[in-house]
Amino acid sequence: MTITTVALDADDTLWHNESIFHLTQQKYFSLLRDFGDEDHMMARLFEVERRNLALYGYGVKGFTLSMIETAIDLTRGAVPAKTIQEIMGLGRAMLEHPVEPLPGVAETLAALHGKVRLVMITKGDLLNQEQKLARSGLGDHFDAIEIVSEKDAGTYRRIATRHGIAVEEAVMIGNSLKSDVLPALEAGLWGIHIPYHITWAHERAEPPADSPRYAKLDSIAEVPAWLATHG
Amino acid sequence: MTITTVALDADDTLWHNESIFHLTQQKYFSLLRDFGDEDHMMARLFEVERRNLALYGYGVKGFTLSMIETAIDLTRGAVPAKTIQEIMGLGRAMLEHPVEPLPGVAETLAALHGKVRLVMITKGDLLNQEQKLARSGLGDHFDAIEIVSEKDAGTYRRIATRHGIAVEEAVMIGNSLKSDVLPALEAGLWGIHIPYHITWAHERAEPPADSPRYAKLDSIAEVPAWLATHG
Repeated sequence: MTITTVALDADDTLWHNESIFHLTQQKYFSLLRDFGDEDHMMARLFEVERRNLALYGYGVKGFTLSMIETAIDLTRGAVPAKTIQEIMGLGRAMLEHPVEPLPGVAETLAALHGKVRLVMITKGDLLNQEQKLARSGLGDHFDAIEIVSEKDAGTYRRIATRHGIAVEEAVMIGNSLKSDVLPALEAGLWGIHIPYHITWAHERAEPPADSPRYAKLDSIAEVPAWLATHG
Repeated sequence: MTITTVALDADDTLWHNESIFHLTQQKYFSLLRDFGDEDHMMARLFEVERRNLALYGYGVKGFTLSMIETAIDLTRGAVPAKTIQEIMGLGRAMLEHPVEPLPGVAETLAALHGKVRLVMITKGDLLNQEQKLARSGLGDHFDAIEIVSEKDAGTYRRIATRHGIAVEEAVMIGNSLKSDVLPALEAGLWGIHIPYHITWAHERAEPPADSPRYAKLDSIAEVPAWLATHG
């Protein structure tokens, strides 16, 4: 058994993302602090986001629209336009935010480049993910970039077919059990979970009960050693 | 010379789109009619959209955010939250709008399927374009779908390389000279312009001065005959 393709999630696997969402939410709750307590607002925002996912998909633009919708709901229409303008500013700041690769990412990708096929597979807004990859400086390491609307087993199968990848020779690495690991295992790939310190509520899932193709690592820096034992 | 690949734009080439934007704008101006005349509002919306394109990219979500931003600007913050909620409803209705293929599209795609490689190349929100293709019932005709953040010559070259397409054997067909025809010609493909009755102000351009690889047709139904003279 040799792993010839390493596929990687982007947000919270290659660079910080959920921490930026988290800080944005704190600023958002602070803007609306006259209209309710934070736990209540968080529950409402979560519910609106969940309801909108099927229509808006993943990414900052949909999140911004959900923040505006929640603010209008929470205040029963009393939120001033100026506050909505500030909420739009929060969304814009997220889109323009500098991209900070996680520790060990650049070194590990440089070490793997040329030895295996490197594929980035991410959800989110198409343009924004392209811009984040460009800002990260990591783009040249990748042989292929796939920005997708959903990550299920069918997605991983389609990507494997498109690139002529044998699924049993590929591993998917990411911080989300739900989007990165479980559907990749279902599609026949290997799956490595590298947790990020915050998990988006919509991405929570249990680890696989018993899979010989599953591993959990603490850092991307451990991937080359893992590959050496699977090469 | 044989054309072996036919690439097609989607919005306003396969199905109605700009007419839906246009109707949405009419409803939007009507919501804001107390705050200015329509020409002024249209100019402001156009300007905000243009400024936001580099950040939001193409698609309904960015357009909705631009409509909200313009409404707050135009009213100097006096727009009520209820009106913003209605603007968000306009955006949502666009995302949920039924997809109506243009006359001759289904028949032409069915006739070409299997004879040439059919590729759909479109800008816009990733999830929304996938959903529109699914709703259109046209998905099975295509050998490949490419949803991209921008359509320039580099985009067409990358897509050709990815699918092993010789550019001189490929034609790009679309309603936008600026996005579909001119950059495809620049990349070495053939380019066919099929105008739609409305052109988005951001997509206006002059036809190529003198290109042997350019044609203008009135309807997609004329494509098989054009191909027969280039086969």
